[in-house]
Amino acid sequence: MTLTGYNAIGQHWVKGTREAFSAIDPSTNQALDTAFFGADIEQMEQACELAYHAFRHYRKTSASQRAQFLNAIGKAIMALGDTLILRAMAETGLPQARLEGERGRTVGQLAMFADSLQRGLTTVPRLDSAMPERTPLPRADLRLGHIPLGPVAIFGASNFPLAFSVAGGDTASALAAGCPVIVKAHSAHPGTSELIAHAILSAASETEMPDGVFSLLFDSHRDIGQGLVAHPLIKAVGFTGSRAGGTALMQLAQQRPEPIPVYAEMSSINPVCLMPDALASRGTQLVDGFCTSLQMGAGQFCTNPGLVIGFDSPELERFTEQTAEKLNQTTSQTMLTPGIHSAYEAGVGKWIQSPQVAMVAEGERNEKPNQCTPYLFSTTADAFLADQALREEVFGAASLVVKCRDMTQFIAVIHALDGQLTATLHCGEHDAPADVQAILDELELKVGRVLFNGFPTGVEVCYAMVHGGPFPATSDARTTSVGATAIERFLRPVCYQDVPNDFLPEALRDGPSKPIYRLEDGVLMSYGQP
Amino acid sequence: MTLTGYNAIGQHWVKGTREAFSAIDPSTNQALDTAFFGADIEQMEQACELAYHAFRHYRKTSASQRAQFLNAIGKAIMALGDTLILRAMAETGLPQARLEGERGRTVGQLAMFADSLQRGLTTVPRLDSAMPERTPLPRADLRLGHIPLGPVAIFGASNFPLAFSVAGGDTASALAAGCPVIVKAHSAHPGTSELIAHAILSAASETEMPDGVFSLLFDSHRDIGQGLVAHPLIKAVGFTGSRAGGTALMQLAQQRPEPIPVYAEMSSINPVCLMPDALASRGTQLVDGFCTSLQMGAGQFCTNPGLVIGFDSPELERFTEQTAEKLNQTTSQTMLTPGIHSAYEAGVGKWIQSPQVAMVAEGERNEKPNQCTPYLFSTTADAFLADQALREEVFGAASLVVKCRDMTQFIAVIHALDGQLTATLHCGEHDAPADVQAILDELELKVGRVLFNGFPTGVEVCYAMVHGGPFPATSDARTTSVGATAIERFLRPVCYQDVPNDFLPEALRDGPSKPIYRLEDGVLMSYGQP
Repeated sequence: MTLTGYNAIGQHWVKGTREAFSAIDPSTNQALDTAFFGADIEQMEQACELAYHAFRHYRKTSASQRAQFLNAIGKAIMALGDTLILRAMAETGLPQARLEGERGRTVGQLAMFADSLQRGLTTVPRLDSAMPERTPLPRADLRLGHIPLGPVAIFGASNFPLAFSVAGGDTASALAAGCPVIVKAHSAHPGTSELIAHAILSAASETEMPDGVFSLLFDSHRDIGQGLVAHPLIKAVGFTGSRAGGTALMQLAQQRPEPIPVYAEMSSINPVCLMPDALASRGTQLVDGFCTSLQMGAGQFCTNPGLVIGFDSPELERFTEQTAEKLNQTTSQTMLTPGIHSAYEAGVGKWIQSPQVAMVAEGERNEKPNQCTPYLFSTTADAFLADQALREEVFGAASLVVKCRDMTQFIAVIHALDGQLTATLHCGEHDAPADVQAILDELELKVGRVLFNGFPTGVEVCYAMVHGGPFPATSDARTTSVGATAIERFLRPVCYQDVPNDFLPEALRDGPSKPIYRLEDGVLMSYGQP
Repeated sequence: MTLTGYNAIGQHWVKGTREAFSAIDPSTNQALDTAFFGADIEQMEQACELAYHAFRHYRKTSASQRAQFLNAIGKAIMALGDTLILRAMAETGLPQARLEGERGRTVGQLAMFADSLQRGLTTVPRLDSAMPERTPLPRADLRLGHIPLGPVAIFGASNFPLAFSVAGGDTASALAAGCPVIVKAHSAHPGTSELIAHAILSAASETEMPDGVFSLLFDSHRDIGQGLVAHPLIKAVGFTGSRAGGTALMQLAQQRPEPIPVYAEMSSINPVCLMPDALASRGTQLVDGFCTSLQMGAGQFCTNPGLVIGFDSPELERFTEQTAEKLNQTTSQTMLTPGIHSAYEAGVGKWIQSPQVAMVAEGERNEKPNQCTPYLFSTTADAFLADQALREEVFGAASLVVKCRDMTQFIAVIHALDGQLTATLHCGEHDAPADVQAILDELELKVGRVLFNGFPTGVEVCYAMVHGGPFPATSDARTTSVGATAIERFLRPVCYQDVPNDFLPEALRDGPSKPIYRLEDGVLMSYGQP
């Protein structure tokens, strides 16, 4: 398959009229083949109109039809074969095994939403029976169902060019909900984006989805992305990226005549709390696990462990030393883009220059461009509490150890943190349960996921996952961008009062035949479960 | 019980230091007894600090403890007896029967949340089992539960001094979720507010809830209300009132360093669509039902039918004439406040002055102050489509009939509407099902509740209710402010990964004993249902 550099306005591939740009191989800083042409405002308008037109039909498709569409996308992605993997490698500097794993996760994610749709697990309608004889007033027949919000604009992330990009979790959950999707392609992997768009469009065609259910736009400036968020036909936004980018979109969406929800997943430093007995009983194991988690994907994971909190003690000292020893021997990895690399260098530079922070490890550095050298720093809780800048994310394989005097200070450090995607607690059987509980109580107020005796990198795609958390981890702590409940972001409830059975949505009719769970007069009923 | 005019900062009643104000009897424009002293910023700060302190304990109470608290509030409200009803009558001009009905609804609403908590229906946790043998990577044990957001600021409405005010749906659902509440009292019914606050605080004391679980503040200016929304310890806002007030709070909440959700229920004109066979087969019945719905509570219902859409026809002409005849003979009713009355007069005045709008009915007018005279107006769909001003809410007993040429124009009129709380469709057995379906399809995109062959006033408190809808009906179409799911506004999901059973929240532990539904590995399980 030859890349065209064109935009997909529904099933039509059209050349953009704005400046063209190329992808850069971050391992060489060389431009790759194919010029990608930025869409203009008129082309963006066309994509929005077409998406809205598609919405009128797409929202009426059955759960099973949408499931077929999602599965067909997965199949079409696999059919791209090595073309996809090789292009993604060149555009991101990520190794083959990682990208193949990410592809599996992307396809698995589409299959998970398809399965959830087919098993009737995506929404639970609520029905209350009519009470015509009730006094003083009769009760109507009331049925609560969910409808999709409308066309959704999605901004992919650079750090997961497959799983959080064109056919990533945002797209999969919006399509599962019944919302057409317009993706603003990330400029760091435009070729990968085009390939995936081809897969989605061929699946849409194969499963007879309406034209406009999916579009892909390249943006030479920022006005196409901003234009999508401001467009009256767009009803929600999905975004994964920087805090600055996410908050800008939040503000734009709020200033519209009709404000719309923005689901932005932004920044997180993912504290790892080390209790004394965990360090005493399995210190070496913790060092190994921590180093692996820190360096995964050159630290470019939103769940990267950027903060370690422990008690100032010989055990923590030993953990720090052993981690430093390991990291000092590690060679650097290529980062995703020159921009991410320079932001990393600047972030690390601030820590190096801070008189309150000690550098305890610095990995080796390749000769190649855009290298991420792993770092470990250390500071006191006093310094950490006094300086808000130390709590900001440094995106890459750098972490900061914070040494606390006692439990009070330990809790104060957690309390001072911004909202996070994850928090980790390592404890052993001799750690006081009351301390563990007190730390857990504080942590859960800050995060979307709390984990014991593990590491935060690696986000399972399942029913119980929460990849979210209080601001600035995300823009909306009530939601998740990974896992089955991600679909809820793109739905809203509608109550149907005394609507005749024939006019009701299928899921709300008397005696449903499709698999579904419903709450009927306060009792959960199951229909047609496989 | 003698009114004090004091603020409740938790269990402590303190005199505000700002200007005092009195309640006004709208039927006489005379000030009522008792001076209410506006809280100052420091007192607001104290209420927030106390609420946050209470939150640390309150969030850990069991569902059953919170249910007891809610039921005790209901009991304490009933114990206020006629004192409450008489004061509310004096402050609002609403008749006794209406206020007694509203009290029943308020107490019933508290009982509904209590029941929902006790039956384990408020949240459905999701559990995914560990798969230690899975390759290439094992799966952790993952459990998704819900935790309350934190202290909530609530702004009561003037039009429901009991059901949407101090102990109304917002307060009941926030307390049910585990969030402490600070109410900014509505200045139109401060005495009613103080009485209800006494009931809540006596219930809190009786059921041993932490001090600060509830506070009540009077605001002489606007800075206490705004200060609450901006306060870092406040984590969500509930509001029922005007569009201007609601959007101002939305903006304020979005500009905070940590943006928070605002659940504002604002404006709605609640279109009523009349199909030909409905008019032909039960025209007189429709006239009666419509007139009753329009004038209920002097039209001061958020679900008031402010718009009628029909086909230009002799049947619609007859409906309009008969309605006009009825309304012309109707006497006026006292409105809630001088402000609401003058806004109504101004809104009606615009319609009277519009050359495109014909006045077809004007009710009689009492000599008393602040009277709402019922009005009916009529216009063409062409005029309605051309003038955005005709789509704005006029809060009171006035409605506008829009005459459409054909189905295309009928759909265009609906399409042009802003988001609404409700839409109503009246049809008969001879109306073409395809037309009914097309209108329903268009209506459901605009509203939170669609109803057939009924009238929108009267909102049932039950599992399936949606009292919400797209902006500007509310600030967040994904939620409802009435019904059991209102509690979801004040909760967020947290995923617990490999957390030992003893440290898990009760609802997520192995083999739960309390009534609960859980989704376990994709299968809905029921535990201990009564």
